[in-house]
Amino acid sequence: MAEALQVWALEGIGEIRSGDDLVAIIADAAGDTLRDGDVLVVTSKIVSKAEGRFVEADDREDAITAETVRVVAERTWPNGSRTRIVESRLGIIAAAAGVDASNTPDGTVLLLPVDPDASARALATGLRQRTGAEVGVIVSDTLGRAWRDGQTDCAIGAGGVHVFEDLRGQVDAQGRPLVVTQPCVADELAAAADLVKRKTTGRPVAVVRGRADLVGPLDLPGARSILRPGERDMFHTGAEESYAAGYAAGRASRP
Amino acid sequence: MAEALQVWALEGIGEIRSGDDLVAIIADAAGDTLRDGDVLVVTSKIVSKAEGRFVEADDREDAITAETVRVVAERTWPNGSRTRIVESRLGIIAAAAGVDASNTPDGTVLLLPVDPDASARALATGLRQRTGAEVGVIVSDTLGRAWRDGQTDCAIGAGGVHVFEDLRGQVDAQGRPLVVTQPCVADELAAAADLVKRKTTGRPVAVVRGRADLVGPLDLPGARSILRPGERDMFHTGAEESYAAGYAAGRASRP
Repeated sequence: MAEALQVWALEGIGEIRSGDDLVAIIADAAGDTLRDGDVLVVTSKIVSKAEGRFVEADDREDAITAETVRVVAERTWPNGSRTRIVESRLGIIAAAAGVDASNTPDGTVLLLPVDPDASARALATGLRQRTGAEVGVIVSDTLGRAWRDGQTDCAIGAGGVHVFEDLRGQVDAQGRPLVVTQPCVADELAAAADLVKRKTTGRPVAVVRGRADLVGPLDLPGARSILRPGERDMFHTGAEESYAAGYAAGRASRP
Repeated sequence: MAEALQVWALEGIGEIRSGDDLVAIIADAAGDTLRDGDVLVVTSKIVSKAEGRFVEADDREDAITAETVRVVAERTWPNGSRTRIVESRLGIIAAAAGVDASNTPDGTVLLLPVDPDASARALATGLRQRTGAEVGVIVSDTLGRAWRDGQTDCAIGAGGVHVFEDLRGQVDAQGRPLVVTQPCVADELAAAADLVKRKTTGRPVAVVRGRADLVGPLDLPGARSILRPGERDMFHTGAEESYAAGYAAGRASRP
């Protein structure tokens, strides 16, 4: 167990309010436990709350529309519920544009942080200064995905931590190039943290210890670099939406 | 740190050959360390090797075609490389149908296990009998995803472990239903394990300790239950492929 990974949630972080100093709150909760190479995984919800990203919205759907730059896919199900997969202002493709109506005051919803990478870098900077430990910070959100049911926590912001482990150029035991080349360690760190944070326990920050090799300078690329550009994304638009666009173009092509 | 998660890789698992007794090999490597509630995350590659899933293939592309039941999306990139996202025999949507040409003898490729859920259950059954510890087993594979670059390890087989943490029906601090309802803990466990297994270190089995609540009877639903059925999958076919099908239908609709 020499190289064991340890993951635990910080206790004692209460309700976060607009304007709260998250660096101070997290540093206080961590006490003197942080070490060089630790990665703190911070739930985006508390970053949003500290940033005052509440908006009044009687209707969550209206807030989603406001945060949406492009509808990727939309479906109304037989039971009347509606799913909108959208590309948000941040470029993240997800259901509901990250608009969160749970654990917020009545009549309000919570938007994602303005710039989660900037938030993560600011937290990493502040925590390094305050604790003296060279830590990395990931801001996480809970995302659905294509093809697989359920959600996993992923990185939407990163500061001072490598988001990919770059194996390109490495070879296998037979000397052939590794086919799988780019593990998204930031998403794996976020997923590991979710296993100790859990959704209902009020523990929004976890520490991951054991992959100090992934922690580095504050100017490393952020989680935005995880987002696949549209021109390389074979699932940039939903299947039904793409079919409908093709159908219309096919009809219009009639001589 | 009372509820810390610990994740470590088993040392001393050598090259796996067709016919090897994986239960014995993993139990020997674990020694007397396993406890009730531990989850073992086993890389599918060694399950495939033990099952003798090598096939002769001069051309990996031919093997991919043989494992494919449906091409989901296909693209040839400006540099001449080709990506095929396919639905494999197992129902998993992924690049290359899980056909693996790294760390295999020259002239051969390795297919996925015949039935990864059955493999996981057999491993869990055998390890419980042999070690006396009520463990769960996940068989993992490295998968790409839509919208996000890089890969993460996911569960393609599960035995004796809950694949979802079901929060449906639970409420937030204001008494409203939680919107995010189904964390895919099996994928999160596989992701956490990848952080200690890594790709080039020859450590194909990891132990995750600290979520004993996720371990249960051997007849729990397997990882196949993670796969979203086509009729609920808004990204069942690639955008270009869907557009092309729609275009053809639109043209054919000419009066």
